Amino acid sequence: MGQLIDGKNFGKVYAESLKEKIQWIKDNRNVNLGLAVVYIGDDKASSVYVNSIIKKCTSLGVHAERFDFSGDITTQEAIDFIEKLNADDKFHGIICQFPLPKNLDELAVRQTIAPQKDVDSAGSANIGRLYSNLDCFIPCTPKGMHLLLKSLGEELTGKKAVVLGRSNVVGKPVAQLLLNENMTVSICHSRTKNLKEYTLDADVIMAGVGVPHLIKEDMVKEGAIIIDAGINVLEDKLVGDVDYKSMIDKVKHITPVPGGVGPTTILMLIENTLEACSRQCGFEL
Amino acid sequence: MGQLIDGKNFGKVYAESLKEKIQWIKDNRNVNLGLAVVYIGDDKASSVYVNSIIKKCTSLGVHAERFDFSGDITTQEAIDFIEKLNADDKFHGIICQFPLPKNLDELAVRQTIAPQKDVDSAGSANIGRLYSNLDCFIPCTPKGMHLLLKSLGEELTGKKAVVLGRSNVVGKPVAQLLLNENMTVSICHSRTKNLKEYTLDADVIMAGVGVPHLIKEDMVKEGAIIIDAGINVLEDKLVGDVDYKSMIDKVKHITPVPGGVGPTTILMLIENTLEACSRQCGFEL
Repeated sequence: MGQLIDGKNFGKVYAESLKEKIQWIKDNRNVNLGLAVVYIGDDKASSVYVNSIIKKCTSLGVHAERFDFSGDITTQEAIDFIEKLNADDKFHGIICQFPLPKNLDELAVRQTIAPQKDVDSAGSANIGRLYSNLDCFIPCTPKGMHLLLKSLGEELTGKKAVVLGRSNVVGKPVAQLLLNENMTVSICHSRTKNLKEYTLDADVIMAGVGVPHLIKEDMVKEGAIIIDAGINVLEDKLVGDVDYKSMIDKVKHITPVPGGVGPTTILMLIENTLEACSRQCGFEL
Repeated sequence: MGQLIDGKNFGKVYAESLKEKIQWIKDNRNVNLGLAVVYIGDDKASSVYVNSIIKKCTSLGVHAERFDFSGDITTQEAIDFIEKLNADDKFHGIICQFPLPKNLDELAVRQTIAPQKDVDSAGSANIGRLYSNLDCFIPCTPKGMHLLLKSLGEELTGKKAVVLGRSNVVGKPVAQLLLNENMTVSICHSRTKNLKEYTLDADVIMAGVGVPHLIKEDMVKEGAIIIDAGINVLEDKLVGDVDYKSMIDKVKHITPVPGGVGPTTILMLIENTLEACSRQCGFEL
């Protein structure tokens, strides 16, 4: 009965439309879209992710450059380098992999990224614009979740949404995006009692807590829509916060993990870089 | 059974403690706490509010200065003036009355107030710090609501909160403050269906929608706590979003309107100005 939301296929189609735009600005505005990727330290998972950013960018015609630093650089060195990137017209967007090694002042580094290039919404300036309903770069994971939800074409106004998680990078921005869709939004988290009461009543569930298979079939309503950004390891397999296989016949639409939200996030980063470019270079996309 | 939260008396006591701190920085740091109040146009309600700010400041020993401009000044003139205030060491805080007359670019004016002096949280820089859990000036009404709630000494972790309203100045910041208290937070608004389902289930209701007596006795749970920032006119009387008289025997604690949240907001503005001063002058309060 329920329909799997095929993020991989969605991403493929979306990537094509981005590629066309990137080609268009090259041909018509003589602008080579550029993204700087800063990677400090030696976290393996981060390094893998940085590689996939570079790869995806390259395949779409974006000039993406990776800048690696060992974990023992000083905060000031990191800041100085990012300031150089801020001033470098080649790069329309800057992303730095967080968390940083503990000897660095992460907040200072985040806040150094120029707001107009902060395509991963690392600094508080963009966050402020998001919650003030001003033009901003929407953080990539929430942006992808929202896009998948919107792609279903369902009426959202007045519907009950439950957001699982209250993090600055997923839960809270997702809640903001759903409020803008006129949904009634409940934010649940690790301290919530009676979680099931909330999820059982939800028309839409947006998950991003990082607890493997937290949500089981008996916790969701028939016909619900579920978007899951959780990525967890369970018995050597990648699984979401939602046990999607158990409930595919009960819900209306649900993302698998992997293959749901995941394939959209780097595309959202590239779309934000396109938006940054259009603002910096003064043209409409 | 229920207890009225006496905001007037609470405010009196709180004002005394602020007054002592203001006197302390005068005596020990030789600093005269200063607040600039900018008033553009001829909105009568705003003018009355500006007067009460000045009066309250004066009574607590704050140097508050009122700067009036006619509604036909240009955006650039307003910006130039605020930039002067930004640079003027006499003033640790700046508040401008909004909304501005429509011929002015309100956003540009808001964003001009230096973040370190933006004690009314008018610009998006402070908002970003609020939602990023960084040091910031919490908007005055939500700050007062939160303070009254905390003053009750009730356990909040894991409790169900319903926030009525999703405005940038009340609903959303209140939701953020309650999430930080580990509450499960549902944000309801004009497009919410079945509002009663939410309110009936709430341990705490925080109201700020501006609909007179929207919440009636049959919509709240026995023993609930209700903080109402609504100020509306009904049959020539000031009333809240909550019909508090009808439910005083049913709830545990409830604010009246007037005399609940109202008396705290200017105090919160002054407290924010004190915080601004302590950061600018580099001392702990």
